[in-house]
Amino acid sequence: MQHFLERLDTNQSWLVGVSGGRDSVVLLDYLVQDGFKNLVVVHVNHQLRAKASNGDAEFVEQLAQKYGLAFYGEAVDVIGLMESEKKGLEVVAREARHAVYVRAIQKHSAAGVLLGHHADDQAETVLFNLLRGSSGLKGIRFENTVTVDECVLKVVRPLLEVRRSEINDYVKSRGLEYREDASNAEAFTVRNRIRHEVMPLLVEIMRREVVPAVNGAAEVSMEQSDYLASEVVLEQFLDPQGRIFLPALLELDVVLQQAVMFQFLKTHKVPDLSRSLIAECLLVCDTVAAAKCNLPGGRWLRRKEQRLFIQQ
Amino acid sequence: MQHFLERLDTNQSWLVGVSGGRDSVVLLDYLVQDGFKNLVVVHVNHQLRAKASNGDAEFVEQLAQKYGLAFYGEAVDVIGLMESEKKGLEVVAREARHAVYVRAIQKHSAAGVLLGHHADDQAETVLFNLLRGSSGLKGIRFENTVTVDECVLKVVRPLLEVRRSEINDYVKSRGLEYREDASNAEAFTVRNRIRHEVMPLLVEIMRREVVPAVNGAAEVSMEQSDYLASEVVLEQFLDPQGRIFLPALLELDVVLQQAVMFQFLKTHKVPDLSRSLIAECLLVCDTVAAAKCNLPGGRWLRRKEQRLFIQQ
Repeated sequence: MQHFLERLDTNQSWLVGVSGGRDSVVLLDYLVQDGFKNLVVVHVNHQLRAKASNGDAEFVEQLAQKYGLAFYGEAVDVIGLMESEKKGLEVVAREARHAVYVRAIQKHSAAGVLLGHHADDQAETVLFNLLRGSSGLKGIRFENTVTVDECVLKVVRPLLEVRRSEINDYVKSRGLEYREDASNAEAFTVRNRIRHEVMPLLVEIMRREVVPAVNGAAEVSMEQSDYLASEVVLEQFLDPQGRIFLPALLELDVVLQQAVMFQFLKTHKVPDLSRSLIAECLLVCDTVAAAKCNLPGGRWLRRKEQRLFIQQ
Repeated sequence: MQHFLERLDTNQSWLVGVSGGRDSVVLLDYLVQDGFKNLVVVHVNHQLRAKASNGDAEFVEQLAQKYGLAFYGEAVDVIGLMESEKKGLEVVAREARHAVYVRAIQKHSAAGVLLGHHADDQAETVLFNLLRGSSGLKGIRFENTVTVDECVLKVVRPLLEVRRSEINDYVKSRGLEYREDASNAEAFTVRNRIRHEVMPLLVEIMRREVVPAVNGAAEVSMEQSDYLASEVVLEQFLDPQGRIFLPALLELDVVLQQAVMFQFLKTHKVPDLSRSLIAECLLVCDTVAAAKCNLPGGRWLRRKEQRLFIQQ
């Protein structure tokens, strides 16, 4: 863990997202042992497991007291939000957490939030994304920023290269207590099955650990995508009205066309940017193909007079 | 299949690799129906299943006769080669097949060899490579060339986007016969388990087909790697003695450093170019790190006076 923690300023104020589960309890304890002074323990109560959820919240608040740290807790009506916003559980829960983190950061003038994702989470995420149709391999970043209501939220994951087995060892050696089920409060069926069925089967078949292989491959793939994204400047392919000027785009290698299209759709806040959506949008460039394609959220990408633009 | 076959000249002579199993029997029948005239049926008898292997060879020879096509068959002592060359079954079998194809191509003046790998093979290969530590995602190419004893062998896989289910439908609709076990003659335990255990589990968990997602992601990853490889010219980083000149290499983004190192090691015929080997070799660039690292095959990569070179 040291490797990652060295990059963080121990004197700065940081939020620590603590569910009460094993991973976040280990993160918090490790940070305290490592000399972080200005930590704020943040707990989001998703209210998904009735009394047990309230038990988690109380446990985390007491943990903060034990370490002599500030506590920030909020309860979120995830089920109600799913209905009112017509979004899936995973999306609603994540957005709710981010909103809570932003409020906690503003209250405590913190630099960002530290989360307990580890190397096994990373491999599971990479496989999950691959099976859902990611473009290359996509995993969790050590550090990223999320924009929530015009606030920029910095998220850092110090344990991202630490294996679950090392976390278990740490729990034992430090005699830590945690809430058993809270670890899985955010674990939905598909992810749980990847963790408990797919990963052990792969290790058995390959007769070796597969997490380092998957995470290493994902690192290369993400570095390659980042490099390619850094190679294209979207503005160079836009006309004064902000439309993609096709003759400029089509001079590029298809790999860079993908990077331009990705940035264009992202700039227009098109959700769910899968590999197949990028590929469909690039088909619209072809003057013998259909001149438009559907975008998620009811919009269209249209081709007209050598330009591509988004229409409501 | 049409999509791929359109790129091939039906009047040219092509070898078709036929094991006698379902996939290659379908490929052969489809090519004949599609109007390919100058096909040579090639069968490599790996002699791994005693009498059954000879039965496969006879079956394929009769199949060639039935279609009125030339036949080229060779038996290979795979087990003996494994012992004498101290290599694994999969490697020895593949090298032996390539050598047979080259001899058949020379005898029949063929343009190359057509093989029956399909989309499900591709997904299984991509996952297998990922679990072994590939750099990004690596799969089978629609077309590639292999150099065997200074001969260049062109290998084309017309079925690479065809699903196994489509191949099964084709077998039924055409009433084709094939050798049940020959399909698995090259399928070793790990691959078989990926096919029969991992893939069905993933489909069940995701509740959708995963082959298109995996293959699509691999296509993007391979395109990105190819593009990056095309961006670097190895010679620009070598000194007159063919050693990597470190100050030039270190000016590059790490993604391009990987591409240069990959090409350098490949040029020197270093086998097993995994992601972790490339990463280890790039560590040698760091003047505070160890000045050499082990390469497979008993050689070393060494750093000396701002140069990297390979030592026996």
